[in-house]
Amino acid sequence: MKTKIIVTLKSGILDPQGKAVEHALHSLGFNGVRGVRIGKFIELELDGDNAEKGRIDEMCKKLLANPVTEDYKIESPTGK
Amino acid sequence: MKTKIIVTLKSGILDPQGKAVEHALHSLGFNGVRGVRIGKFIELELDGDNAEKGRIDEMCKKLLANPVTEDYKIESPTGK
Repeated sequence: MKTKIIVTLKSGILDPQGKAVEHALHSLGFNGVRGVRIGKFIELELDGDNAEKGRIDEMCKKLLANPVTEDYKIESPTGK
Repeated sequence: MKTKIIVTLKSGILDPQGKAVEHALHSLGFNGVRGVRIGKFIELELDGDNAEKGRIDEMCKKLLANPVTEDYKIESPTGK
């Protein structure tokens, strides 16, 4: 089963990468752009036991996201 | 208006970062995981002229994604 995970910085945390992209967009003439935040998008295929929501949660907490500074959202584990 | 952009590597392109994450998951005991691919998730706020789909497309092509190796998907510009 295909699963998508989106990892984003928590709202209080500074995002220098986002700021850099914002400045670059401004210098390209896209002036109305604000609040750029960059996160990670992770796609993976799971089978059997690993496809449970709890298992994916565990992967996020142990490796994919840093729970101190990042939030994560799991998309599309249809069913469980 | 808030817009989300997901940038992913095209399917033929090797993803060493994804491979590294896959190996790390295996060594943590998550064996049923395959096909890990890592992309970027970009969130930004737009106003006025910049909120048109065409403008966002232009941003992706000029800065946010590399059209040679990456695909992008624009989410949620409600309306236009």
